[in-house]
Amino acid sequence: MINGHTDFIAHLGWPTHSFKAPMIYNPYFASAGINAVVVPMGCKPDAFPDALRSLFRLENIRGALITMPHKVTVVDLLDEVSPTVKVAGSCNAVKRTADGRLVGDMFDGEGFVRGLRGKGLQLRGASALVVGSGGVGSAIAASLAAAGIGTLALYDVQEAAAEGLAQRLRMHYPQVTVRTGTRDPAGFSLVVNATPLGMNPGDPLPIDMDRLDPRAFVGEVVMKTEMTAFLQAAQARGCRVQVGTDMLFEMIPAYLEFFGYPTTSADELRAVARLEY
Amino acid sequence: MINGHTDFIAHLGWPTHSFKAPMIYNPYFASAGINAVVVPMGCKPDAFPDALRSLFRLENIRGALITMPHKVTVVDLLDEVSPTVKVAGSCNAVKRTADGRLVGDMFDGEGFVRGLRGKGLQLRGASALVVGSGGVGSAIAASLAAAGIGTLALYDVQEAAAEGLAQRLRMHYPQVTVRTGTRDPAGFSLVVNATPLGMNPGDPLPIDMDRLDPRAFVGEVVMKTEMTAFLQAAQARGCRVQVGTDMLFEMIPAYLEFFGYPTTSADELRAVARLEY
Repeated sequence: MINGHTDFIAHLGWPTHSFKAPMIYNPYFASAGINAVVVPMGCKPDAFPDALRSLFRLENIRGALITMPHKVTVVDLLDEVSPTVKVAGSCNAVKRTADGRLVGDMFDGEGFVRGLRGKGLQLRGASALVVGSGGVGSAIAASLAAAGIGTLALYDVQEAAAEGLAQRLRMHYPQVTVRTGTRDPAGFSLVVNATPLGMNPGDPLPIDMDRLDPRAFVGEVVMKTEMTAFLQAAQARGCRVQVGTDMLFEMIPAYLEFFGYPTTSADELRAVARLEY
Repeated sequence: MINGHTDFIAHLGWPTHSFKAPMIYNPYFASAGINAVVVPMGCKPDAFPDALRSLFRLENIRGALITMPHKVTVVDLLDEVSPTVKVAGSCNAVKRTADGRLVGDMFDGEGFVRGLRGKGLQLRGASALVVGSGGVGSAIAASLAAAGIGTLALYDVQEAAAEGLAQRLRMHYPQVTVRTGTRDPAGFSLVVNATPLGMNPGDPLPIDMDRLDPRAFVGEVVMKTEMTAFLQAAQARGCRVQVGTDMLFEMIPAYLEFFGYPTTSADELRAVARLEY
């Protein structure tokens, strides 16, 4: 119930039609007795810098969720960003500190990592192949590096994207062995699809499944269907898998903590969310 | 249920704690199946011009409700204002036209007038005394003039406020006889308390009740209690009365129409509102 004591979180992007956060955060806030609301705000690129600055001069803004097409441009508008933002090159959460600075972070990859940890996966020293070096692939790579992964192989059809990400990873996480140029999954204990392949029927699979180690753990970012063709094929080889929405629900506790709310679990969020897949 | 198709109405003011609009509009939107939400936004004076301008560059803003301390300053930030705003000198509703201009209006007085009409009062050619020439008194005077009142007597302890309002009324509504300088209710068929008297226990009554015509209709803007001491005294003399919250609920259909929503009734709004008095 919104009243004069309600804080709001601005959800800035364009178009807004596919926004999912309001249907996860708001039912959770209601169930947890937190007086806050996520408000979708359609914002085109030329309006974004002004909107961000002006919104953060309002008294009851608790933070902002930043989505397409502003995730990259927002980085240069902030006073401080996390190492994950620096590696990923994009940011989707902003808050104001007590002294008025705007700080940004990015927890999409953290959601992916929390999901893996919850399934008992040991990441420290492991080797991972991340196919796709766009926004979400970069975020996952950054969070795997922060989680202590030993070896990280990056692949993108746009070679420059994978190379740029590799460079930023080497700068911020020199202890991680970063390789590029192949999407051969052989020998990796973790294989991640961070491409849009699987969004549309008839999409090719992101890797050669015959080369996938049956002991490997396989993760997916596509959440259009729970069990994508890629995950089905991986499961058929005996691999354990993580579905796309696990990343979605696992990342939200991290965002809530960032905005200063008590922590919660992905299960609790799933139980109250009003998403339809 | 807020989702990616939700429009929002920014409710701008400071402090926000006593905001009532969210608890009236939002339950109504939910009950009427209108996908919109009123969001309280705490805004201090120095942040206001930027906030107003930037918010109206967002795609899904349906309008703004403007309250203290911005009702007067907002007028000069708009491209177009109604005659009511010009007379009242303040504005509390803003929308963006299709061609991007910001237009302002003010329906507090219209709510008062709609309430009177709903009670069968004939305003055309009638004579009214409005005690108090602040924001709400000015709005009521402007709407009474627009409704065709014949004679309007204005009184304020700050004489300049009543004189200024009288001048603006004479300019925009030359057919209305406007007088100032007395709060003697004798001879008026409508008497309105538009002062804060009645907010606090022990407040004096705004007029000399012994001079009040028992056939007069008496209206009140104070809504801290339904039957204020003033209304009780008027009723004791035999006068018919209108309580403060009638104005509140009667104005909201006018605001909804201004923002482009279907019209509704004060009764329907009262039935779903979640206000506690």
